Amino acid sequence: MSALPVVPPTPAPSRRTARVAPFLAMDVLSAARAKARQGADIMHMEIGQPSAPTPRRPLEAARAAMASGQIGYTEALGLPSLRERIARSYQELYGVSVGAERVIITTGSSGGFLLAFLAAFETGARIACACPGYPAYRNIFNALEMETVDIPVGAEGGWSMTAAAIAAESRLRPLDGVLAMSPSNPTGVIARPNELADIGALCREQGLWLISDEIYHGLHYGAPASTALATAPDAIVVNSFSKYYCMTGWRIGWLVVPPALVRPIERLAQSLFISTPFLSQVAAEAAFDAVDELEAVRAGYARNREIVLNALADLGLDAAPADGAFYAYVDVSRHAADSMDFCRRFLDEAGVAITPGADFDPHLGARFARFSFAGSQETCVEGMARLKTFLQTASLRA
Amino acid sequence: MSALPVVPPTPAPSRRTARVAPFLAMDVLSAARAKARQGADIMHMEIGQPSAPTPRRPLEAARAAMASGQIGYTEALGLPSLRERIARSYQELYGVSVGAERVIITTGSSGGFLLAFLAAFETGARIACACPGYPAYRNIFNALEMETVDIPVGAEGGWSMTAAAIAAESRLRPLDGVLAMSPSNPTGVIARPNELADIGALCREQGLWLISDEIYHGLHYGAPASTALATAPDAIVVNSFSKYYCMTGWRIGWLVVPPALVRPIERLAQSLFISTPFLSQVAAEAAFDAVDELEAVRAGYARNREIVLNALADLGLDAAPADGAFYAYVDVSRHAADSMDFCRRFLDEAGVAITPGADFDPHLGARFARFSFAGSQETCVEGMARLKTFLQTASLRA
Repeated sequence: MSALPVVPPTPAPSRRTARVAPFLAMDVLSAARAKARQGADIMHMEIGQPSAPTPRRPLEAARAAMASGQIGYTEALGLPSLRERIARSYQELYGVSVGAERVIITTGSSGGFLLAFLAAFETGARIACACPGYPAYRNIFNALEMETVDIPVGAEGGWSMTAAAIAAESRLRPLDGVLAMSPSNPTGVIARPNELADIGALCREQGLWLISDEIYHGLHYGAPASTALATAPDAIVVNSFSKYYCMTGWRIGWLVVPPALVRPIERLAQSLFISTPFLSQVAAEAAFDAVDELEAVRAGYARNREIVLNALADLGLDAAPADGAFYAYVDVSRHAADSMDFCRRFLDEAGVAITPGADFDPHLGARFARFSFAGSQETCVEGMARLKTFLQTASLRA
Repeated sequence: MSALPVVPPTPAPSRRTARVAPFLAMDVLSAARAKARQGADIMHMEIGQPSAPTPRRPLEAARAAMASGQIGYTEALGLPSLRERIARSYQELYGVSVGAERVIITTGSSGGFLLAFLAAFETGARIACACPGYPAYRNIFNALEMETVDIPVGAEGGWSMTAAAIAAESRLRPLDGVLAMSPSNPTGVIARPNELADIGALCREQGLWLISDEIYHGLHYGAPASTALATAPDAIVVNSFSKYYCMTGWRIGWLVVPPALVRPIERLAQSLFISTPFLSQVAAEAAFDAVDELEAVRAGYARNREIVLNALADLGLDAAPADGAFYAYVDVSRHAADSMDFCRRFLDEAGVAITPGADFDPHLGARFARFSFAGSQETCVEGMARLKTFLQTASLRA
């Protein structure tokens, strides 16, 4: 070996890491947990996580599978019985026929996004997404050197991403894909069936991949959301057991993909994941038999939603419709120049954790904050009571 | 919406997917399982998975954690107590001090590779890897548009990747990193401490990232492997609970990274994974208390290793040293022009699943096959007996 130079060069983090923003909801969670460890009584309204436990049947199934201790790799695409059960659910829930061979089990919807994006898009691809939207999309695209094309949505247009707005953007510069989410995080808006059909038709016309994030399906307070597969059979659907099925910490989700993507994604999954967690797959299959328990949870969200939306209205704060999911996306600009400050002080002074809008919208997010009502009714009641006091007493911008 | 064109363009899978090879070991697993479902009595020697169950203590810890049903997201970097326990193990096992803040919990070593590669390397980065080596490296690099620089290793050089060989390659064209693995998959070779120190020194001198895959640590049949951190404190170490700890299906691993990478990787992990599976983290922490059970498993591998290496020698087949891990990498070129054919026929005709060398080496892999001795003693005895019969009776190339 040759001698070391006096000042050896030090490798630096990749440039892409500078383009990946922190997920502020997770940072708020860390800060809130640190405060809780110091004894603070924190109301958690920051994170999209059901407070309800995993239902009884998935827990029983996991316990039974643990009896042998044989917890090994599965096929890269997932346990055949789980793939078949998910395929069957499309007939039961939507009246849409989906072959089990098109269902791919993933490590949460997170794993599904990574596989879908890598399988569908080249480096530099341009993908249209509603803004505000789920922040991980932009971050994963940045990590993979792909480009998020923001389609602004707002109160004036009912917070809906329309085919016309996407088409206008693609006339400026061609797109490679569209990522739709209904019900939406953070607004809770559910796309009307014709809106989704129009986006599907535009994608077909222009040869774009349509990725439909359906992770909040099952959580609706009026008409249910429709699957993109009903009108766009070649869509890539991303879904998960985290939200409706109350299984966040199991990290288990799925994709439905067109036949041409199955084998490419299998090859990617073999090397990128090997397989998804075994116990989570076993538990997930049993989750389909937990509907009674899960519908009771949903009824709780509906009550929480009333509590939160009514309290916000009483305080004169405007929120997006929250037709589905479990979020209220709220304009707090009357009370703070930057909602990040609002959130920090609301946590510090009132012990309520919520998520700043900058997570969801780099342009106008400083006006907004997201309140999750996935927690308990007590959390929602107490959180809203503290909000009222906080707004009355805090020396916020008038 | 405008009318559809007569033949709408159909989006195609991305070009990168064509560069991601199937993981043949996983394909063999699928084929072997399909045969087993039809009633065949298959000896599984294809996959790097302990046949021993998860030890008692991790199972108990997971069961206890399930009692509440509260199985939620954790901090993106992992449960603090698990990070601390892993940090402590570096002092206990290697006498190396590692701060818990540098330990990052990942979804298997697979999750660790993805985070490490994205955080350390730009698109187009060139990373030196021993060839033969773990196939997922090349596939993940291809998926991320990075380049694997093969450093050929073979019987004549004791199957070791040397700093000199890496330096020679970097003189031809600069490198961005080195990925070392000891004990190695598929050869089982353990790098001598000075070899690893020399590679670390070269990386420091040239400003390259050193990534050390230490997933087979703990599995040695002579001197143990040393951690890269002992001589290269800025190395990125990848490890997992899958192999020594018998926890493949839990999908749980970790990284140790230099301080400058912690926050960049936290941001990536927040969006790419959200968190690792909760129960797996709880179980992993308890795995450190299962050493008695695990050492008994290792003693079983040592017996299996003798059975397999002795049988191969009796059959006149050359194998790499297998100092660690649980594989024999075997030259089968006397018996088949392409080891893929050998593997297919060995499975079809004798019911023994092994992995073709093409998984590990695109250049010379057609000469080799990998036998895993991570299964039971019965599997190894029967597998070798069937190999003897197969070589005697099969109409293979003389």
